[in-house]
Amino acid sequence: MIAKTPKTPYYAVIFTSKMTDFNKDYDKTANRMVELAKNQKGFLGIESARNDLGITVSYWESLESIKSWKNESEHKLAQQKGKETWYASFKVRICKVERDYEF
Amino acid sequence: MIAKTPKTPYYAVIFTSKMTDFNKDYDKTANRMVELAKNQKGFLGIESARNDLGITVSYWESLESIKSWKNESEHKLAQQKGKETWYASFKVRICKVERDYEF
Repeated sequence: MIAKTPKTPYYAVIFTSKMTDFNKDYDKTANRMVELAKNQKGFLGIESARNDLGITVSYWESLESIKSWKNESEHKLAQQKGKETWYASFKVRICKVERDYEF
Repeated sequence: MIAKTPKTPYYAVIFTSKMTDFNKDYDKTANRMVELAKNQKGFLGIESARNDLGITVSYWESLESIKSWKNESEHKLAQQKGKETWYASFKVRICKVERDYEF
């Protein structure tokens, strides 16, 4: 489940969120978005965990591939629903992964 | 709990991990490392979540501050203990946060 990403550099989107108490349909949509993302051009991998705070990190080949994913039509509807219903607050950080190592 | 980070650019360390079943003393050490990190020069914030996978993202002013934290003596002991005992595998990614936005 640790994403197998290529040699650096590549890009990461860190999505950190706090949910509201109204999470009907959330899991279904979240799973659907992961499936959609995996089929996007430039997608490299995704990692996700949630306790009180949720953190999802997706990895991408380029800033262009991140932009295309942000503007994907079904994803845009999910983003709107997220703001209206599921998320109390969130933060998105677009990053260039400069170096990595593993154990 | 979403980290209040300054204007971009700044740096992020994404630490993704899978644990072994032997987690004695882990929480105590993990909490101690967060306290230590908060007192490091250049520390900006930290976010953490764990299910099957654990994701901790720490934010830093510069690559130099990340390097200093990596080499902090008590932290180095904890890293060693992590490899010997707590982590089945992990990946560390050093990133430059180029852009962010929030809701």
